[in-house]
Amino acid sequence: MKKILVLLLFPIGLFAQPKAVQASRAWIQKEGPNILSTYAQLLSLPNHASDLVNIRKNADMIKDLFASRGFAMQLLELDGAPPIVYGERKVPNAQRTLCFYVHYDGQPVDPTTWKNAPFTPVLYDNAMYKGGKPIPFPKVGEPINEDWRIYARSASDDKAPIIALLAAIDALKASGISYTSNIKLFFDGEEESSSPNMKVYLEKYHTLFDDITLWLLCDGPVFQTGDPSLKFGGRGVTDMEITVYGASRPLHSGHYGNYAPDPGFMLSQLLASMKDANGRVVIDGYYDSVEPISAFEREQLKKVPNIEAYLKEDLQIDFTEGSGEPLFERLLLPSLTVKGLYSGNVGKLARNVIPNSAVAALSLRLVKGNDPEKMLDLVEAHIRKQGWHIVYQEPDKETRMKYPKIVKVEREKFGFPAAKVSMDHPAILPVIESVRSFTGDKLVLLPSEGGSNGIFTLIFDGLKKPGISVNMVNHDNNQHAEDENVRIGNIWYGVDLMSVLMTMPPQGLEKIKKK
Amino acid sequence: MKKILVLLLFPIGLFAQPKAVQASRAWIQKEGPNILSTYAQLLSLPNHASDLVNIRKNADMIKDLFASRGFAMQLLELDGAPPIVYGERKVPNAQRTLCFYVHYDGQPVDPTTWKNAPFTPVLYDNAMYKGGKPIPFPKVGEPINEDWRIYARSASDDKAPIIALLAAIDALKASGISYTSNIKLFFDGEEESSSPNMKVYLEKYHTLFDDITLWLLCDGPVFQTGDPSLKFGGRGVTDMEITVYGASRPLHSGHYGNYAPDPGFMLSQLLASMKDANGRVVIDGYYDSVEPISAFEREQLKKVPNIEAYLKEDLQIDFTEGSGEPLFERLLLPSLTVKGLYSGNVGKLARNVIPNSAVAALSLRLVKGNDPEKMLDLVEAHIRKQGWHIVYQEPDKETRMKYPKIVKVEREKFGFPAAKVSMDHPAILPVIESVRSFTGDKLVLLPSEGGSNGIFTLIFDGLKKPGISVNMVNHDNNQHAEDENVRIGNIWYGVDLMSVLMTMPPQGLEKIKKK
Repeated sequence: MKKILVLLLFPIGLFAQPKAVQASRAWIQKEGPNILSTYAQLLSLPNHASDLVNIRKNADMIKDLFASRGFAMQLLELDGAPPIVYGERKVPNAQRTLCFYVHYDGQPVDPTTWKNAPFTPVLYDNAMYKGGKPIPFPKVGEPINEDWRIYARSASDDKAPIIALLAAIDALKASGISYTSNIKLFFDGEEESSSPNMKVYLEKYHTLFDDITLWLLCDGPVFQTGDPSLKFGGRGVTDMEITVYGASRPLHSGHYGNYAPDPGFMLSQLLASMKDANGRVVIDGYYDSVEPISAFEREQLKKVPNIEAYLKEDLQIDFTEGSGEPLFERLLLPSLTVKGLYSGNVGKLARNVIPNSAVAALSLRLVKGNDPEKMLDLVEAHIRKQGWHIVYQEPDKETRMKYPKIVKVEREKFGFPAAKVSMDHPAILPVIESVRSFTGDKLVLLPSEGGSNGIFTLIFDGLKKPGISVNMVNHDNNQHAEDENVRIGNIWYGVDLMSVLMTMPPQGLEKIKKK
Repeated sequence: MKKILVLLLFPIGLFAQPKAVQASRAWIQKEGPNILSTYAQLLSLPNHASDLVNIRKNADMIKDLFASRGFAMQLLELDGAPPIVYGERKVPNAQRTLCFYVHYDGQPVDPTTWKNAPFTPVLYDNAMYKGGKPIPFPKVGEPINEDWRIYARSASDDKAPIIALLAAIDALKASGISYTSNIKLFFDGEEESSSPNMKVYLEKYHTLFDDITLWLLCDGPVFQTGDPSLKFGGRGVTDMEITVYGASRPLHSGHYGNYAPDPGFMLSQLLASMKDANGRVVIDGYYDSVEPISAFEREQLKKVPNIEAYLKEDLQIDFTEGSGEPLFERLLLPSLTVKGLYSGNVGKLARNVIPNSAVAALSLRLVKGNDPEKMLDLVEAHIRKQGWHIVYQEPDKETRMKYPKIVKVEREKFGFPAAKVSMDHPAILPVIESVRSFTGDKLVLLPSEGGSNGIFTLIFDGLKKPGISVNMVNHDNNQHAEDENVRIGNIWYGVDLMSVLMTMPPQGLEKIKKK
């Protein structure tokens, strides 16, 4: 049972390469070592959003790198927040304005768990888990293997698109290829801290964003098989915590067992009523507001490589929720999962008590059409239908003595809806066509990520602009964890990708629709 | 809604007092201050079982107190264990041998939570929670109020029967009343640590116990109303911990929610299948082995004061498991309760994951007829019937990929069955009659405690001897907690009780059966 898929290098070169890709490859061939050297410098700057001194060093370096390449750069500022590194370059007669979103901050690090210091980039001749060993960075003229990896915090998440953009700019310039769109750059400095100031930034500096035709969200890995991917949105998210009450104090399980209310059981009963054995949510109306995906999207979904066998081995599971649909179909529906259960104690700490309460933390992931508040309302309505009395704070004695089944509901206040752009949106189709022009049918188009990205929502719902997630880094990059890394071949793919995106033709709708 | 029952002083004196009670009362009247003074000395000795130096001081003092009153005393010893203080006094022509079980060790103390030092006994003019204030211990000749309380660790649990026995011995001697039974004394030194050596002690010294007709287990409080009580056994107990598995690692709730197995939900579903909405266990055969109680016991149960309104206010509940039966009826059935639930995190620690497992700790309290192993077998059979694959250790990858629903079962190895003697056992009826002779119909007879007492089981099942729980201390004694106390009136009742038990007539069966 060794079905683990290997990282496939998608077949660059099987097609007649667009000029932009030819330019990219020529530049990489010549300047590869310099690209990696610049990247190592950028990766050596610590970049947690709370470290305002170092985060500004990152911002300044990025600003200078793009300014020296002819971009009009500025730092957008809010008190106490990491700056947004903003840039633009206008092109005569451009028919659109693209904005590349990247974040330059990274997850916090625990150096004790890293093989090397997180901000001392080290080149390896393969992934560590494949037996890779450290090697020196190459000198100009030395060959570079695409399976090499750079280990450092943010090597993949999310400084990689920055180095790809820089190299693409240089490559296009070296080959004398002009941009076909106005280019804007938006480098977020606190994405890994949930971009708490993003909304205010977008409002304060909205005049900079009004003319953007399409946001290109450069974050996240390519498909699990190693195939290139584009994603057209993410699910929304909200939460609910429910606390079920027994007696007003924990009771001796002998003196009161078989008499006193048993919160652990009662909570189980309530949760069990919410889904059927296949994991289908049986709360009334839970799936009613789901916007169906288009026929075009349905068609693309059929082309997504089947990785079910890989997933089942990777996750070590036999059962999946639903009726056997693959992962990417299931992500097109809202989910309801238990994030946490707590009551009394288990294991060595278990005591002979009937606990006085039991708590469940629920996660709701939402798809297009689901309103976060209305979805929580549906869950509440279901709870009431099961005979529960809902309270929103600790029940008092009178309430406790009045109702047989009492549950406290705590609703998430900061949920947000799904953000998804239709795959056949006119601003999107040229992207698909251009990327496909050099990746071929290996390109995986995913209608929605399973995860939730507040940036998508702020752009799609707040700015009323379309966006798309363009991915470049390897999926086995240890994102957020120790020994984060990027595969060199994926940086090169990123340079191709950025080159193509900056030079994509305005047309494309008809060609794509025919496929 | 102020229905909280007050401690009723049961009506000593409404009946023609037995001679033994007359002797007890006369002694208390004369020697009350000395009884309390001796008791304060005994309570000043720290008595946690692990403190072998102090526990021996307790043992020596108790041995000396009884030896000076003509009992043949000895310390039964096992290496590293607190000694059993054993004593006996033979009576010519006695028709039975009674053995008084008491424990002289106490729960550990956290002095920072106590109003006074736990081993500095302080007399109060009422319960603290009723506004009682500290007062000096009385001098000989000064009156004593029955509502006074002594605060100290083990004041109720369980040194009170020791001082009651001592005073009863003195009282009977002063009035020239002879014992009607051989008397044995068995003072346990590690009950609050679960008497781990009890079985070995009983085996090693079994010749001392072979001739015992009836064990009188002097521990635990009187009925919640303050009415006197006798209890005829306790429930058995066993446990099971079940762990339900999802994927082999916690998963992002967005990337996999609606696809990956959801252990919190699956566990809820499994638990919910075990009981109906009224708390009736629906596991096949769960109630089949329950031995019915006798008609005589059923009759006595009807006389138990109804404290349902009190319990519902005390516990702040509207719902109880079952179909509205009172607590003491419900304790005659096996229970199945959730002691603990654990999966992922709730509250501020909740993260956006689908945890990889969910755990429930279950408590089973057993009644006469239930075999602990067979009851766990029934639960396992139920789990299988729900479609689960049971493992007894962490499942390996192959197992995980083979079965859709996997649960690890961890069975308690040290469960024990219920121990209960029939209320109309010939050795028991004289006890009932004698106690009733001075308490009247206020005496509450409970077929079984809800809790579990390994001592009962060792005596009933191990030694094949009958026993009965005779109670003297107030139920609001803060047993096991800070500010443990005993009400003086309950000590006096204890002296009456011990005096009556040591002098009870051999007959009694006929009288009781007529009631």
